[in-house]
Amino acid sequence: MPFLRNHWYVGAFAEEVGHEPLNRRMLDEPIVMYRSEAGEPIALSDVCPHKSAPLHMGVVHGDTLACPYHGLRFDPSGQCVHNPNFDRAIPKAARVRSYPVKERDGLLWIWMGERAKADTVTIPLCDLAQPSVTSRPVKGYIHVKAHYELLTDNLLDQSHGETLHPYLLKEGATSRMQFEVRQERDTVISDGLLPKEPITPILSGLWDRGPIDRADHRFIVTWNAPSYILLTISAYPPGSNSSEGVTGTNAHLLTPETAGSTHYFWIFARDSRLEDDPFDEELTAALNQTFVNEDRPILEWQQTYLSELGDLVKRHPLKADAGGVRARRVVERMLAAERQK
Amino acid sequence: MPFLRNHWYVGAFAEEVGHEPLNRRMLDEPIVMYRSEAGEPIALSDVCPHKSAPLHMGVVHGDTLACPYHGLRFDPSGQCVHNPNFDRAIPKAARVRSYPVKERDGLLWIWMGERAKADTVTIPLCDLAQPSVTSRPVKGYIHVKAHYELLTDNLLDQSHGETLHPYLLKEGATSRMQFEVRQERDTVISDGLLPKEPITPILSGLWDRGPIDRADHRFIVTWNAPSYILLTISAYPPGSNSSEGVTGTNAHLLTPETAGSTHYFWIFARDSRLEDDPFDEELTAALNQTFVNEDRPILEWQQTYLSELGDLVKRHPLKADAGGVRARRVVERMLAAERQK
Amino acid sequence: MPFLRNHWYVGAFAEEVGHEPLNRRMLDEPIVMYRSEAGEPIALSDVCPHKSAPLHMGVVHGDTLACPYHGLRFDPSGQCVHNPNFDRAIPKAARVRSYPVKERDGLLWIWMGERAKADTVTIPLCDLAQPSVTSRPVKGYIHVKAHYELLTDNLLDQSHGETLHPYLLKEGATSRMQFEVRQERDTVISDGLLPKEPITPILSGLWDRGPIDRADHRFIVTWNAPSYILLTISAYPPGSNSSEGVTGTNAHLLTPETAGSTHYFWIFARDSRLEDDPFDEELTAALNQTFVNEDRPILEWQQTYLSELGDLVKRHPLKADAGGVRARRVVERMLAAERQK
Repeated sequence: MPFLRNHWYVGAFAEEVGHEPLNRRMLDEPIVMYRSEAGEPIALSDVCPHKSAPLHMGVVHGDTLACPYHGLRFDPSGQCVHNPNFDRAIPKAARVRSYPVKERDGLLWIWMGERAKADTVTIPLCDLAQPSVTSRPVKGYIHVKAHYELLTDNLLDQSHGETLHPYLLKEGATSRMQFEVRQERDTVISDGLLPKEPITPILSGLWDRGPIDRADHRFIVTWNAPSYILLTISAYPPGSNSSEGVTGTNAHLLTPETAGSTHYFWIFARDSRLEDDPFDEELTAALNQTFVNEDRPILEWQQTYLSELGDLVKRHPLKADAGGVRARRVVERMLAAERQK
Repeated sequence: MPFLRNHWYVGAFAEEVGHEPLNRRMLDEPIVMYRSEAGEPIALSDVCPHKSAPLHMGVVHGDTLACPYHGLRFDPSGQCVHNPNFDRAIPKAARVRSYPVKERDGLLWIWMGERAKADTVTIPLCDLAQPSVTSRPVKGYIHVKAHYELLTDNLLDQSHGETLHPYLLKEGATSRMQFEVRQERDTVISDGLLPKEPITPILSGLWDRGPIDRADHRFIVTWNAPSYILLTISAYPPGSNSSEGVTGTNAHLLTPETAGSTHYFWIFARDSRLEDDPFDEELTAALNQTFVNEDRPILEWQQTYLSELGDLVKRHPLKADAGGVRARRVVERMLAAERQK
Repeated sequence: MPFLRNHWYVGAFAEEVGHEPLNRRMLDEPIVMYRSEAGEPIALSDVCPHKSAPLHMGVVHGDTLACPYHGLRFDPSGQCVHNPNFDRAIPKAARVRSYPVKERDGLLWIWMGERAKADTVTIPLCDLAQPSVTSRPVKGYIHVKAHYELLTDNLLDQSHGETLHPYLLKEGATSRMQFEVRQERDTVISDGLLPKEPITPILSGLWDRGPIDRADHRFIVTWNAPSYILLTISAYPPGSNSSEGVTGTNAHLLTPETAGSTHYFWIFARDSRLEDDPFDEELTAALNQTFVNEDRPILEWQQTYLSELGDLVKRHPLKADAGGVRARRVVERMLAAERQK
């Protein structure tokens, strides 16, 4: 199962990585992350080139990581720079792969492709994790035993909430929704407007303005390859626009772990109830209910059935699948381009 | 590993299936069972044709089952009849496989083969689960990680009880047994008569007549393809016949789950101690001791060793294996006939 | 993954095997061990030739082991000698493989190759488990999910202790060590001398002589194919020899379970603190810390990474690997010789 390689993927939330090494598999490659003395994040292959011991069980010395087995130390470039044993001769040819890594706005982004093509300019903008005077975040990490494109399909699909997440969309909501999918170059946008509805539970939770009978609801999902999805949900007085109401901005950052599992980082930033500490917990619980208890079991059964049954299952795309279908086409094209090189 | 398809298999005890869908894999196919408003049992493929979501996590609406992911509803024929999303256009081509299913005497029988050949006349008669003035049942379900033919061998084999189930046959019993295996068309019968023996523990448990010193014991196992096995055990005054004594009639209904696992439904009906409520529990415990604690571990190790070692292990059939060998030959012939079509 | 077959391997500590059968997989073959009435150890294939039932669940009768399923009894040669069923005809062709087994000095050695070549003269001498007036043992069994040659590499490698086992070697110790690997026919010897060092923790624990400021340390690892490794560690007054100090003699007896797992039996005999009962426990804890908590996780990750990544990982042997490399060459040569026959 191929993955898009020449892309930045989230390896961790910034605070997950310190002087204790963190082990995480990405695109089926075992990676160890740690920080230099200056606090710079470093990402190396977790497999010691000497005897395949797991570097993540080792100890950080200054800017280097020592293998737990024989103490060979590797610098941030992956070069072996220290051998504590016998004559201390350094095996010059011993080096581990080093991955370009960039910390930005509370996220560690790792470049999984050809080093020469790593350009931090292409890292998606995602500053939601940083609180500000107009924004307050909650966030989380979820492990899902499903291929990341099943999550992409899920997130671009505006209709499944009505069945699976009553917290998000009420019964009959999609039939009243003005919905379109559009594509701007490689960006796929799924856009839904639900005019003059009684406010849905999740947006009613965010609402901190005066009493309101009905609201316009706007749901915009923006996908960028390979797996950076931004969902904004807004409610505002009918006929006005989102700046007149409340908005939750929800980043979904998917990193393939293996062909059948995904690291799922999410951040949800609200522009309301900014001083309301206890609401953080309530909102986190609601989002976990959505992702962990409702979406995840479906995704994992899909993975099971698709792995087992393969093409025996005919697919019947519905209108709501248009986003996922387009995103998959972009990925297919990019994969073909990567293969040609 | 092929299975006989043009047969009725037990999917569930009737009371296992209600308005909550039940998920069970049969012949390696994921199946969901539920009941219509009128209480009719329905069996569909568990895999939604839209995106392979698991239908068993969905909700029953009237006679239809709604997919938990997007709410597509499927009627008992498997046809998609409702789409709650957007324009509510029904994807006409979307249908799941529907399995003929018949409830009879407390069992749900599912036809796993070609629909045109499903004929409820061929459902095995098995009314043991229904109490009557002359019969009182206990029953159970056991999951066994072994190919169903290992269970068939076990059940047709009258000798293993002496070693494995002292509750059933005493030491030396088979050497005193008049034993024969006969075949009537595709029915294999294993018949054992043990004359004038001190009554064995299980039959002594059933015995509610006057004092008896010794009894004739009769054990008859009747196998019908693919995996419907009826065992009757009787004790009666020497020289009389089973109607003069007590009889336990034990149906064993095997449904292959996968090539290496089996759903094992059993019903044991007695014609004695008909008013004895507490004895139900005692008898159930004894039968579970036999099936779960004694037979199952052996069957699962057999499966492990046969899977691993395959034909490396030479087989040395004993006299007691004659039943299993004949049943396997009938299955082989029927499999060949199914393949030819 | 081939194994060397014409060798004696440890199947169990003597006291593990009695009249209760013991099940253990060796070189990927399921083996059952038990004792005859006279107390002689017996090793048979665990797979009944009748229907592949697991003999280890059966019962020992005199010198024979009865299959738990049908009661066929097998004598120490593996021949079926009893059939309790029906006419009690013994299936003469039914026999299980019997393995030559020899109890010596508290160990059961099993010959895994061609019976004609089994010669107890070739059993490695290993009398460490027997206490004597000059020696007191502790011992243990560890299951490791790694190929046995990863353990061989580990044990012949004198440098990893400095990083992984500070209890054994202090920082910088190997740089002060006089180290050589030599080979005498098929025996590989890794020899390290550490002169005039403050005594290391493990040897300081063994030390029961007068006060000593510094000691010479000697570590000798002797490997014999396929996987019998003897490690002696000594501390003694500088310039004298090991007979003037204390010595721990540590046998490591590795038996491949599967291509990815190993039975690891160890015995550690000391020639000091001979009357010190509580020290047994302290020493056992320290050795388990070394093997179970420090070595084992590394070995199991190595196994994982090597299984997954195979030859993609370049190996950069260091000086300390010379022993393991030579041992692997001996094994390769012996494997080729076994294949030719």
